[in-house]
Amino acid sequence: MAKHPLDPLSINEVRQASRALFRGLNLQEDEIRFKVIDLAEPSKDETLVHLLERGPMPDRRARIYYQRKQRDLMSRAIINITRGTLEKTDDLPDAQGPVDWAEYDLITTACNAHPDVVAEVAKLRLPEGARVLNDPWAYGTDDVEERRRLFQCYMYLALDDDDEANHYSIPLPLAPIFDGQTLELVELQKLPLGIDDEIDDETQPWVPVKPVEYSANILGPDAFRKDLKPLQVAQPEGPSFDINNPKVSWQRWQFQLGWSLREGPVLHDVRYEDRALFYRVSMSEMTVPYGDPRTPYHRKQAFDLGDSGFGLTSNSLSLGCDCLGHIAYFDGVRVSATGEPVVMPNVVCMHEIDDGIGWKHTNFRNMKSSTVRDRKLVVQCTSTVANYEYILAYALDQAANIHIEVRATGIVSTMPIRPELKSSPWGTVVAPGVLAVNHQHLFCVRIDPILDGARKNTIVYEDCIPVRDDPELDPYGCAFRLNTTPIVSPGGYDLDLTKARTYKIVNPARRHEVWGKMAGYKLHASPSQMLMMGPETFNHRRGVFASKPIWVTRYRDDELWAAGEFTNQSREDTGLVEYAARAENVDAEDVVLWHSFGLTHVTRPEVLDFPVMPAEKLSCALKPTSFFDLNPSNDVPRSNQRDNQSTLHDQSSAAPGCHQNP
Amino acid sequence: MAKHPLDPLSINEVRQASRALFRGLNLQEDEIRFKVIDLAEPSKDETLVHLLERGPMPDRRARIYYQRKQRDLMSRAIINITRGTLEKTDDLPDAQGPVDWAEYDLITTACNAHPDVVAEVAKLRLPEGARVLNDPWAYGTDDVEERRRLFQCYMYLALDDDDEANHYSIPLPLAPIFDGQTLELVELQKLPLGIDDEIDDETQPWVPVKPVEYSANILGPDAFRKDLKPLQVAQPEGPSFDINNPKVSWQRWQFQLGWSLREGPVLHDVRYEDRALFYRVSMSEMTVPYGDPRTPYHRKQAFDLGDSGFGLTSNSLSLGCDCLGHIAYFDGVRVSATGEPVVMPNVVCMHEIDDGIGWKHTNFRNMKSSTVRDRKLVVQCTSTVANYEYILAYALDQAANIHIEVRATGIVSTMPIRPELKSSPWGTVVAPGVLAVNHQHLFCVRIDPILDGARKNTIVYEDCIPVRDDPELDPYGCAFRLNTTPIVSPGGYDLDLTKARTYKIVNPARRHEVWGKMAGYKLHASPSQMLMMGPETFNHRRGVFASKPIWVTRYRDDELWAAGEFTNQSREDTGLVEYAARAENVDAEDVVLWHSFGLTHVTRPEVLDFPVMPAEKLSCALKPTSFFDLNPSNDVPRSNQRDNQSTLHDQSSAAPGCHQNP
Repeated sequence: MAKHPLDPLSINEVRQASRALFRGLNLQEDEIRFKVIDLAEPSKDETLVHLLERGPMPDRRARIYYQRKQRDLMSRAIINITRGTLEKTDDLPDAQGPVDWAEYDLITTACNAHPDVVAEVAKLRLPEGARVLNDPWAYGTDDVEERRRLFQCYMYLALDDDDEANHYSIPLPLAPIFDGQTLELVELQKLPLGIDDEIDDETQPWVPVKPVEYSANILGPDAFRKDLKPLQVAQPEGPSFDINNPKVSWQRWQFQLGWSLREGPVLHDVRYEDRALFYRVSMSEMTVPYGDPRTPYHRKQAFDLGDSGFGLTSNSLSLGCDCLGHIAYFDGVRVSATGEPVVMPNVVCMHEIDDGIGWKHTNFRNMKSSTVRDRKLVVQCTSTVANYEYILAYALDQAANIHIEVRATGIVSTMPIRPELKSSPWGTVVAPGVLAVNHQHLFCVRIDPILDGARKNTIVYEDCIPVRDDPELDPYGCAFRLNTTPIVSPGGYDLDLTKARTYKIVNPARRHEVWGKMAGYKLHASPSQMLMMGPETFNHRRGVFASKPIWVTRYRDDELWAAGEFTNQSREDTGLVEYAARAENVDAEDVVLWHSFGLTHVTRPEVLDFPVMPAEKLSCALKPTSFFDLNPSNDVPRSNQRDNQSTLHDQSSAAPGCHQNP
Repeated sequence: MAKHPLDPLSINEVRQASRALFRGLNLQEDEIRFKVIDLAEPSKDETLVHLLERGPMPDRRARIYYQRKQRDLMSRAIINITRGTLEKTDDLPDAQGPVDWAEYDLITTACNAHPDVVAEVAKLRLPEGARVLNDPWAYGTDDVEERRRLFQCYMYLALDDDDEANHYSIPLPLAPIFDGQTLELVELQKLPLGIDDEIDDETQPWVPVKPVEYSANILGPDAFRKDLKPLQVAQPEGPSFDINNPKVSWQRWQFQLGWSLREGPVLHDVRYEDRALFYRVSMSEMTVPYGDPRTPYHRKQAFDLGDSGFGLTSNSLSLGCDCLGHIAYFDGVRVSATGEPVVMPNVVCMHEIDDGIGWKHTNFRNMKSSTVRDRKLVVQCTSTVANYEYILAYALDQAANIHIEVRATGIVSTMPIRPELKSSPWGTVVAPGVLAVNHQHLFCVRIDPILDGARKNTIVYEDCIPVRDDPELDPYGCAFRLNTTPIVSPGGYDLDLTKARTYKIVNPARRHEVWGKMAGYKLHASPSQMLMMGPETFNHRRGVFASKPIWVTRYRDDELWAAGEFTNQSREDTGLVEYAARAENVDAEDVVLWHSFGLTHVTRPEVLDFPVMPAEKLSCALKPTSFFDLNPSNDVPRSNQRDNQSTLHDQSSAAPGCHQNP
């Protein structure tokens, strides 16, 4: 039984929800095809009454995306699990909903088996034993009238029997489009191989190339450097965290670890020294528009949370690979097409890391040092969205900061190019015949504050600006000061590095007793190039959230999604655009702060980012301001050798003169 | 005996250099006052002939800053240590040269003992046992005629007997100016306590306040959190690095670890897989202008490398405090006032860290994962410049990247303010009576490339720009591409986040054999607000380097210093301004890339950054582009539990339902 209103759904609850849907619709087990069952969070009102005022536990609810068989229409239901009832159901003729694993399998199978595809593949005259694979991609949008559920199957070749053979290093020029409902072939689209839209009239025989592999099995033991010695993290007294349902406690922090198929791990009800800070901190969306004008790439734009889900695509982690030290794992649950819960083991890990020096001061008069190490608690998942990996981490530290970090890694999305072409304006040739198209990764983090329990917060921005040209006040021209602007209207806002602009969440009701400043948390933003595609494009209209780094909206229940609830084949951003359009006051109200950031990925020539790309790290942070009376990590025990047990390098064997001056 | 031309000076060499100066000037031991003896690097020409073409070992040389006693004039000598000769000496009537420890001690003593200062302090009516301390600061500049060597002694109070008592939490309103040559009191300046320049006519009795302490002794054992468990790094097979004079080797990297009193650690002769990458990578300068127009703060602007030195102020590190794992330490040497070498033990540390996942890919068809951890080799020092700490680290990784990281920590520079004032436009009141003035920290990193041994490199910048409004090429408006601009003229250049502008060093002579692109390294810059003070101010004129994020200059020997060789009381930036003014061609020439970055530090109210500030981390990186044939870390052994020995958290004690679904 859930102990916290925001606990993820349990195995039993997923089953109860699917059963309640059958009952509520009065349908048999083979009449519903389930896509998603996730927690439908209780209202913030009732949750806070429960959490802060000991009100009743809100009813547990589930959100279900499903189809009635024989109807090519997605529906959404809200189930009251506590009462076992279907509370609400809508048909969603305009929404495609995310992909699910069952559908994915059906489409890959249909594509590889379709006689037209088989016939076209035959023209490639592939060698004996070659395996043809396809990755169905979200179709994207280039037509407002399109209502079919479409998938573009990008096709690849694996030459090695090893099932880790890197098929992304041999892209084929075929990309059939399938209808995900009917599993019919819609069009056997072929891919352009030059720098314009031109397609070969006839599929040509495949020109053999050598794949670029990453699998240790295929590379063989001689391919590896031999001089890397083990580095282990030992925690002889165990971890400093405590998992005590419903809370995770770690030093002065407490939070409820949530999880959804869409978002992966979510931080709920985050407190420091039992002061409420954030109602919810989550990764809301991520879009990847490609910058290639050739059909079908103009359509290629993934929304990896809305189209598939960071939780649904999360790796089952195993000890020793993703983390060092003492690791706790958390499972997830998804629903099968038939309504059965499917456990996803170890989709989230939690562990402590040492991140170097947290603070240090040495009194130079006597050389006595005080050093505090930067211990962090990291909650992490790895999502594999076909070729690509996102490693999402929330890290809490001892100075009351929350860091939100994404590592982008995995294999870049590869497309075929004529082997004789050495370059393309649209991307990087990463191997002969393999083009990695230029693209952007644009994330959006959602921050729902509740500073000291207050639901009335204000977002302000502060600019550092020189005084300039005021000889009386500033005779030497050196002065600068802060200019603070509260945000009163919802919408998108800009960063401004030339002013060191900083956005803060402040609680106007809580002023420091001595200094009178408002308690707050500031956002350390990640300044990024925003979405490059112009406002008239589908890429932009579907992902307006990615056009501005900062968004402020008035809180409403269920408004969790920067690009809207349904992004797959979406035609408009129904998230931040709609939330902001209400034009409500956001000054001293229940506000949500959103931060869009990302990277423009021009794959590094020629194959530095290939086969697997060294992780690019992006991060932003939330840091207290006027919130505590002191550096919150002033009470962390000072770093010492008794606890740290470091080892001194024996340099006696080093040649004399090596800084060991004679 | 030095084995590498760029080896730091040894103890013997410092002694040989001072002896050679006595001989060369024909002076006795009490007739010279030494300030600095550092390596005078051999010319790049002769060094490269030695390193790359087995030419002769260049003669070893030292640069000495010194004074003849009885002359208030600084001089500079170049000593040929190999030959034991004085090669050159200049008198530098316009340069003050950096502070040295002997001078610092003399001034603090002179200040505390001066009868006028004592008399003024008496007016404060301090309690019995209170200790008055002063920190002599570089005077700065507000007058082009000033030629005296001046120090402004900011004064503080310590109430506790403990010698780590935080005197910075009790600033006094006195700031006498002393002549560093004569040790005479120049002016007993008092500090403004309001928001304008006004000074109390008469020094008022001190109003008692409670200091804010960080010392564990003073805080006592009950002040600390109890729930932090030890986290240790074990390297049972030892480190992966090898220190073999003259080289440090670590996996595929080799470099010569240099060190100077001015710069601290320096990377010389950096190679990857024995391919030359960088001749020299160093922190060149750092300036801290304060944004307060009140006298004397308008002058307050430290140049922490040129005025004092990251090496000279480096902490002697000890096992278990600054690093975890297997640690190698390196000593430095400085010279005493009398010409004797003084060993500075353990001023640089080197160790490996694990920085999470380096890359990962999971084949979603079979869920087999390949994970490579991000092991880094970190070379680090901590410099204590009076109240403040800079932790400078160079980190090499397994994907051939070099990360340059600075952590800013320590105690903010505090000034007195009337205790009844709760705020100031010029800074943050961090405790009653204590103002932390707004300031900037602006660093400059110097990157001297020698890609594949080439001395003819070009700096280019690449912009990602949308195609836009070209319906034929880009009918859907989604296309973007790279625009590459080579830099042909030296000078300062801008970043442009809206174009994701990236600067690259490329070697035009080395094109990829298949793709034809130039091998290079790109700079991952740290986009920052640049120097805010206008061009007419001394702050700007002395630190022009901090007004632009990117600088390109033509290489010349000894041009190592972004703001010039002598910054103390400088009137002009004699570094990048002069280097760039020659207006030589920099396209396919021996070029140097400089990157200025930093942070505008508005101390977080009220005392979140006090007493010691949680480290703010800044970093930039150099990453290969078109340089290798593959992800350079494709050959790193995959992460595995056999080596990592992680521990599984026992969640059986956690309440059921805690993601361990029943």
